[in-house]
Amino acid sequence: PDGFAGIHVNIRVSAMQNVPPVKCHSLLDELRAVVGDAHVLTENSVSSRASHYWDATPMTALAIVRPANTDETSAIMRLCHRAGQAVVTHGGLTGLVEGHASNEQEIVLSMERQRDIQSVDVDGRTITVQAGAVLQSVQEAATNAGLQFGLDLGARGSCTIGGNLSTNAGGLSVLRYGMMREQVLGLEVVLADGRVMSSMNRMMKNNAGYDLKQLFIGSEGTLGIITRAVLRLRAATPAVATALVAFDHYDTVPAFLRHMDDSLNGTLDAFEIIWRPFFDLNTDTTIDGNVSSPFDNSYPIYAIVESKGSEQELVTTQFQNALEVAFTDQLIVDAAIPQSEKERQSIWQIRENVDIRRRFDPVFVYDISLPIVHMQSYLNDIEANLNKQWSGVQFFAYGHLADGNLHLVISPAKTPDYTEALGDEWHSVSNDIVYAPLHALGGSISAEHGIGLKKKPYLALSRNADEVAIMSSLKRVFDPDNKLNPGKVVSPR
Amino acid sequence: PDGFAGIHVNIRVSAMQNVPPVKCHSLLDELRAVVGDAHVLTENSVSSRASHYWDATPMTALAIVRPANTDETSAIMRLCHRAGQAVVTHGGLTGLVEGHASNEQEIVLSMERQRDIQSVDVDGRTITVQAGAVLQSVQEAATNAGLQFGLDLGARGSCTIGGNLSTNAGGLSVLRYGMMREQVLGLEVVLADGRVMSSMNRMMKNNAGYDLKQLFIGSEGTLGIITRAVLRLRAATPAVATALVAFDHYDTVPAFLRHMDDSLNGTLDAFEIIWRPFFDLNTDTTIDGNVSSPFDNSYPIYAIVESKGSEQELVTTQFQNALEVAFTDQLIVDAAIPQSEKERQSIWQIRENVDIRRRFDPVFVYDISLPIVHMQSYLNDIEANLNKQWSGVQFFAYGHLADGNLHLVISPAKTPDYTEALGDEWHSVSNDIVYAPLHALGGSISAEHGIGLKKKPYLALSRNADEVAIMSSLKRVFDPDNKLNPGKVVSPR
Repeated sequence: PDGFAGIHVNIRVSAMQNVPPVKCHSLLDELRAVVGDAHVLTENSVSSRASHYWDATPMTALAIVRPANTDETSAIMRLCHRAGQAVVTHGGLTGLVEGHASNEQEIVLSMERQRDIQSVDVDGRTITVQAGAVLQSVQEAATNAGLQFGLDLGARGSCTIGGNLSTNAGGLSVLRYGMMREQVLGLEVVLADGRVMSSMNRMMKNNAGYDLKQLFIGSEGTLGIITRAVLRLRAATPAVATALVAFDHYDTVPAFLRHMDDSLNGTLDAFEIIWRPFFDLNTDTTIDGNVSSPFDNSYPIYAIVESKGSEQELVTTQFQNALEVAFTDQLIVDAAIPQSEKERQSIWQIRENVDIRRRFDPVFVYDISLPIVHMQSYLNDIEANLNKQWSGVQFFAYGHLADGNLHLVISPAKTPDYTEALGDEWHSVSNDIVYAPLHALGGSISAEHGIGLKKKPYLALSRNADEVAIMSSLKRVFDPDNKLNPGKVVSPR
Repeated sequence: PDGFAGIHVNIRVSAMQNVPPVKCHSLLDELRAVVGDAHVLTENSVSSRASHYWDATPMTALAIVRPANTDETSAIMRLCHRAGQAVVTHGGLTGLVEGHASNEQEIVLSMERQRDIQSVDVDGRTITVQAGAVLQSVQEAATNAGLQFGLDLGARGSCTIGGNLSTNAGGLSVLRYGMMREQVLGLEVVLADGRVMSSMNRMMKNNAGYDLKQLFIGSEGTLGIITRAVLRLRAATPAVATALVAFDHYDTVPAFLRHMDDSLNGTLDAFEIIWRPFFDLNTDTTIDGNVSSPFDNSYPIYAIVESKGSEQELVTTQFQNALEVAFTDQLIVDAAIPQSEKERQSIWQIRENVDIRRRFDPVFVYDISLPIVHMQSYLNDIEANLNKQWSGVQFFAYGHLADGNLHLVISPAKTPDYTEALGDEWHSVSNDIVYAPLHALGGSISAEHGIGLKKKPYLALSRNADEVAIMSSLKRVFDPDNKLNPGKVVSPR
């Protein structure tokens, strides 16, 4: 959810399945009868679309089918099930692990016509939406009702609720409101055979039997197709206090986080960490559009801390009290407090600017989690190993510290011409340098982006054989023919 | 989680299964070889135990087996699996839906020797515990580390983490910290065949494949046996502000809740509602040990509101400002603010005193959820219908308003001698008067207590046939022989 994907550098794993030959024309005709001719796209209408929000490579698929609602989605799945047709569901195409990848034998089921916000219940604090609704439109509907939605991330203008659900999205407010899973009360899911599981619970508490929706959240379209959801809304937080703080070394970072969480207690909304290389890049004012650092000095580590609440005076007082104590206790060495919304936006731009992918090519972005206390030594080891691998390598680190979640950006600083040959090197960098050390630390190869195709080769570093075996069992139960986003996350056996 | 169960009045559904005759002695000998002779209890050692925390009826079981750790639990399950032996797992026996019920053909697997708190990670804010750990001991370990655990409920001194997990317990802090599900990072589960699924994740974020732990949370011991857990800890909240407020009618209650949630924003910790009959009962000072009402007048509805944070002055200021606005806006008509911890405890006693079950016999306790805006008319209808059913009926209502969760207590005010004949009447009161109206309102027959045996006949009022069918599929996958807490929650087909 940090807005960019990197170049995929030919390590895209093929999603080819042993699909028996399909009677394409008859199936497509049947699908047209369900959704109308205009909503079954083939050939040029497929390849004229980009395969991903960040990747102009033409999309590949037998057809793109665009159902208007749950009934049509169900009818499509019944037909595809009968025909043994593999289906890949598409939301906003902003995912970062190739969970959306499709091939010429697969049908893409696009949720682009199911974008409605169906109702907002102000008293019950819920919003009911179709899965194709764009995150930002849900945020705005909540705001218009005097409330807010608890999920926010860089791709908010393009990503869909269905995508957020299928990847259990994280982002900028996890510290306070939890991941997407915590925003969900009810789901409607079309199963592999076209049956509709309607579980549109609107209650905060409902312990009437197994909580089935949990299965479909975070399973990346491999167990069912989410068509609608009931989501929780939260109280609005009109009052904001923000600071950019600086550290002389990492040692005081965990203590500062703890101090702020203890002091702000329930109103701490964001705690984002930025190591010097990323900070310097995004405050380099020789680059168009960049903001300048508010500090005269340079520091090895920075953090953006934000508190949100209802009354500005109380929020400001509590926030500044907490920062003063942090200074006194030498947990931080510098702090800049924005004096206007414009200044606040500038500070956030240092964190959210992702032009890095245009400046370095190829780049590879990682999304990992590990215990906070081990972060600095983990990064030091990576840097040392990268320098052995590639002279002139670029290495950036930043992330959602309070969640134990870092994003790493690595570019070997080779010319693009070299890109084609990088496949194996990328794999060994990913496996040996970035992912393998996480195993011993109890970290995860995917904090919030999911597994898709891209991280599937590394799944065993974060999940043991028993866990993977149980995942496969679940895949067999819900998709016995392996036709729902086949090849992604986990194999059925 | 409100500390009492009611009398079960002969509606206990039999958990008898078609278990093939077991070679008892050889299996028990094998179990003794695993856990030691002292930890396989039979006959008098079984029947000398009470069947439930609130029910002195002797326990019934082929044997009670007390494994010391995960390995022994796994070994027991391997043996029971081979022998086709049904197993019922016991925690603190405080559950309220007969999820613990066992018969003479079933082995009770008691977690009473697996109570260890294995580690507290202050930086990572996690605690790792065995499933038999008592909730209060976990709360205390968190407090001793300068943190807190996010779950609290009346049975804290007896209930176990394993029971809290298997029922997805709610309680008094759900509004702020969520239910038990939201407190869990990792689980270790012994499966029906004795395999151990170790999924002891300690990361806040880990999207590496399906989130398997979700399956076992809230499934009441029917899909696996939870042996250990990694739980989240939260910042401590040493500063507290509390008020008992009164309303002239229900109309302003939802608006007052919303106002307080908006104003206190992140620090609202509890919002408990009490209707007059329960308030009057628990402030009747002719009864030993009761506290008196702090009000001169009597009101139809009361609420206890509590805010918690880090700095007392800020918490108090924010809380009192919010109450003042509520007065001005006529959302509340009276308020009592405790001036000492003793006074605060007195106010909570009005809500938490559950002597009601000693004073009325038989009583039946309900745990339901429904949209807040419909609560008063729902209660009015119940009262009218109860009065038609039983003259002199006693009807009490209170609960976790912010979660949409009410507890209802009904006593027909018959003599205990009449109890034996009440079975069918209870069923019709439960079904027709209490549960059936929830269906149309989108409510739930179980907000936080679960289904067990007691609510199984009513499950279809809150879950549709497709949902129940999928639950049964999951039961077949994880417990194909139907030997894990058989007969509870859902049948395998």
